[in-house]
Amino acid sequence: MTRIDFQTEPARYRHWRIAIEGRIARLIMDVDEDAPLFEGYQLKLNSYDLGVDIELADAIQRLRFEHPEVGAVVLQSGKERVFSAGANIRMLAGADHAHKVNFCKFTNETRNAMEAAGAESGQPYICAIRGSCAGGGYELALACDHILLTDDSASSVALPEVSLLAVLPGTGGLTRVTDKRKVRRDRADVFCTTEEGIKGRRAAEWHLVDEVVANSRFEEAVTERAEAFAARSPRPADLTGIALTPLERSVTEDGDTIVYSTVEVAIERAARRARITIRGPDQSPPASPEALEGEGAGAWLLRAARELDDAILHLRFNELEIGLLLFATSGDPAAVLAQERVLLDHPEHWLANEILHYWKRVLKRVDVTSRSLAALIEPGSCFAGLLAELAFAADRSYMAAGEFEGDNRPPATLTLSPANFGPLPMANGLSRLATRFFGDPDSLQAAQGRQGEALGAEDAAELGLVTFAFDDLDWEDEIRIFLEERASFSPDALSGMEANLRFAGPETMETRIFGRLAAWQNWIFQRANAVGENGALRRYGSGRRAELDLRRV
Amino acid sequence: MTRIDFQTEPARYRHWRIAIEGRIARLIMDVDEDAPLFEGYQLKLNSYDLGVDIELADAIQRLRFEHPEVGAVVLQSGKERVFSAGANIRMLAGADHAHKVNFCKFTNETRNAMEAAGAESGQPYICAIRGSCAGGGYELALACDHILLTDDSASSVALPEVSLLAVLPGTGGLTRVTDKRKVRRDRADVFCTTEEGIKGRRAAEWHLVDEVVANSRFEEAVTERAEAFAARSPRPADLTGIALTPLERSVTEDGDTIVYSTVEVAIERAARRARITIRGPDQSPPASPEALEGEGAGAWLLRAARELDDAILHLRFNELEIGLLLFATSGDPAAVLAQERVLLDHPEHWLANEILHYWKRVLKRVDVTSRSLAALIEPGSCFAGLLAELAFAADRSYMAAGEFEGDNRPPATLTLSPANFGPLPMANGLSRLATRFFGDPDSLQAAQGRQGEALGAEDAAELGLVTFAFDDLDWEDEIRIFLEERASFSPDALSGMEANLRFAGPETMETRIFGRLAAWQNWIFQRANAVGENGALRRYGSGRRAELDLRRV
Repeated sequence: MTRIDFQTEPARYRHWRIAIEGRIARLIMDVDEDAPLFEGYQLKLNSYDLGVDIELADAIQRLRFEHPEVGAVVLQSGKERVFSAGANIRMLAGADHAHKVNFCKFTNETRNAMEAAGAESGQPYICAIRGSCAGGGYELALACDHILLTDDSASSVALPEVSLLAVLPGTGGLTRVTDKRKVRRDRADVFCTTEEGIKGRRAAEWHLVDEVVANSRFEEAVTERAEAFAARSPRPADLTGIALTPLERSVTEDGDTIVYSTVEVAIERAARRARITIRGPDQSPPASPEALEGEGAGAWLLRAARELDDAILHLRFNELEIGLLLFATSGDPAAVLAQERVLLDHPEHWLANEILHYWKRVLKRVDVTSRSLAALIEPGSCFAGLLAELAFAADRSYMAAGEFEGDNRPPATLTLSPANFGPLPMANGLSRLATRFFGDPDSLQAAQGRQGEALGAEDAAELGLVTFAFDDLDWEDEIRIFLEERASFSPDALSGMEANLRFAGPETMETRIFGRLAAWQNWIFQRANAVGENGALRRYGSGRRAELDLRRV
Repeated sequence: MTRIDFQTEPARYRHWRIAIEGRIARLIMDVDEDAPLFEGYQLKLNSYDLGVDIELADAIQRLRFEHPEVGAVVLQSGKERVFSAGANIRMLAGADHAHKVNFCKFTNETRNAMEAAGAESGQPYICAIRGSCAGGGYELALACDHILLTDDSASSVALPEVSLLAVLPGTGGLTRVTDKRKVRRDRADVFCTTEEGIKGRRAAEWHLVDEVVANSRFEEAVTERAEAFAARSPRPADLTGIALTPLERSVTEDGDTIVYSTVEVAIERAARRARITIRGPDQSPPASPEALEGEGAGAWLLRAARELDDAILHLRFNELEIGLLLFATSGDPAAVLAQERVLLDHPEHWLANEILHYWKRVLKRVDVTSRSLAALIEPGSCFAGLLAELAFAADRSYMAAGEFEGDNRPPATLTLSPANFGPLPMANGLSRLATRFFGDPDSLQAAQGRQGEALGAEDAAELGLVTFAFDDLDWEDEIRIFLEERASFSPDALSGMEANLRFAGPETMETRIFGRLAAWQNWIFQRANAVGENGALRRYGSGRRAELDLRRV
């Protein structure tokens, strides 16, 4: 299988167009059916595969960074008679289990990014549905802040997955129907089992869409609505964005080493692990948000976030056997704190706001990555402020205590900052430290009182900030034992265990999507009724009904 | 496979003993290794299968009804050197997927019943661990209100599922470790991957147990603790219980009809559905809680709950292909309201309290039953008060509107009472109506204002209390179409869909156990790493390591 690349740019899009007029952007889905990511299927009827979604994710991201003047985004179809048929069925039927699961996770993250754009950047999404809008197509609509449906006989919304394909609307569909749209559960049951979907007034009555508009007035109504949203957007109209220039990235022939400007991935293939090292700032901190703007995509904070994001996605999709990610850092902790200050001190500045929220999303991506995560806090490292979040995102952390013989780097430290106490929440709405100390407010408060101190291993362990602290004598053995042990466990059991242990405390729509909906979908994605030789996904379009195992589980 | 029966009584127990002394009951686990539920394995080391758990569920229930004087329950082992080795591995390796899933669901419900006994009946559970307490054994401990561990080299707590068996601690283990015991997530990670478990002081330090006590003082400490708990129990010591006499139940040879005193199950095997009819009161309502006590197990309210409970469990385990349960009732709605009044008016009376809480548990069992649920509200029915909860537990409901030709029974009505607005919450902590109207408080309030009225179909539909209302002309066709359609869908997709749509709103430890943990466990229970020919469950004890698919999903 070829390496999937998550980097793209509008000039290379095959499936989307961005048209900006004043404060309104139109994001037009016009999928090129002859440009699937893999061979063996065509992307008919605006159906999508990962390639289509990579472009969408890129477009959402660029609108936030490159077009901060935009105050509302209209999501619409570029096809005449169809909005979108959802995820491509032949692609799903042909993809292996891991790809299906990874695909759904990424599309879910992209839908969440759409909602985040409205909540965090004043770029709400308005969905303009003309034509049939089914399955993943309607899940795209569900991720918007406002849905308009045209009132004609051909336009409808539907979640036909259960009746047609024996799978779930797993890209947030079931959860958003009840939790976000507040559709009554029995109506949701009817809707999700009605293959042809629901149109017209009933769609609004059941809260499936916000407005149903006569066909003749549709364009006008969409524009009016977008203008109204844009008028309410807190974003000033006179901002100028920064260009998200291509990443600096080099990959060795064997794929074992990837070097970015601030991130390095070193794969130890036989041991099934990767070490991800983030190098601390290589430039002095921006003195003001305006200076940050001047740095553009070259700002260390933005480079590190983009590079880490790319590295995580690469490992998820292209390196399935790498079961353990080791987070390391190198550099000066004080320099990290100096860099992040411009974000924390200027939440009102659009770019500071964007970069901070981007870090939030990248860290959330780490949280739901189904690989074991460990942090190695070693001499010469810079786990401070937002980089310390990597240690708290990890399933466990090891910290080196004191001087290491023959190592002239400074002893390992861990430094807390305001970044660790609120602005970078997990999907459950809590900071990683609040999750860590769930039910133990005293420990959280004690940690809060030690901000700004370069804590040694003993203090960090005492405060409960790291799992283990080992000195020079024990370090190597302990790490080796852990690495060997972890590699011996069933990858499946670890995925399930970590998904349960990482998110103590409150649940949100987001945790329900990743925890409950996705877990059920994964289950179904293995069942013969869906994916078997004679299952619904394989038989779709063949004119033959699926053969079903009739036992209920 | 032989029919699994959920009815038992202490005289027939093979695995448990109940010893009551004053206000303290001891529930002693002493599994007879030669009495497994199925052939092919022995229940060594106090390991358990469904048969063991059926007795435990019965014992918990009897302590509440038959021994209301008990103010604390000590859970202990009857074996010398082991507390419990958890769910029997050979049983898990040999059981089919549906049985494993059903088994885990039932054991989860039983653990929840232990916690409920403390919260609702003043019968807290104290776990006294001597010897090794592993896997499902420790999950039993986690379901107790207080855990004592003896401090010797042989006694430890462990969740070795991931490392040893490539499955999860799926009987609430992972969730209770983080959410109930508030074990820090990185420590939970270490604990859940440490096969040999944790003993002594560290077990208390990590919150895995509440107390670690020297071996020489252990018995004394357990008794002291139980006495302290009993002294705080709100239950008066001078109560006398009622006997839970055997159910009246007859089953036809073909298994298609089961007749209880108030419940009837009619299976239409070819159509893969069962109709469950609850007949309204066949006796006048008890005038006082004392009169209710006088009726004992003969009280209609208690018979109906026990019979419905038994019917649901039977269908879950013994009728895997019956995909749809149709709830019907027959009788006088006013008589149902008259019966339930004694429960609602006397929450302070121990038996009224027990019966109401039992209804709550039975209805929760309905909620998490992975079959499609529909209510048919027909002429002559009595969907009133607590019986109306069945209509709100259903995935959808159909109500007959007006007179039906040739049917001289009274037209269908639906009657709300205080039972529908709080005392019978779902696992999410909300009433079924509050869940139904999640995000729509006006509708909830409107319904609240109509309590006591026998609502006709039009009113019920207008208030949003039923999904559809059809008159004489359309009824049969509409129902037939629904039944046929539902039967044509993939049972797996329906299980997943219903598990997602039924529980809008807040999450609790309970919903996380059934929604997140169980879904992941189900996924793993299909994966070759666990259940394959060379998977960990099959290879356990063979001296050969499991062969693992190393790709991460």
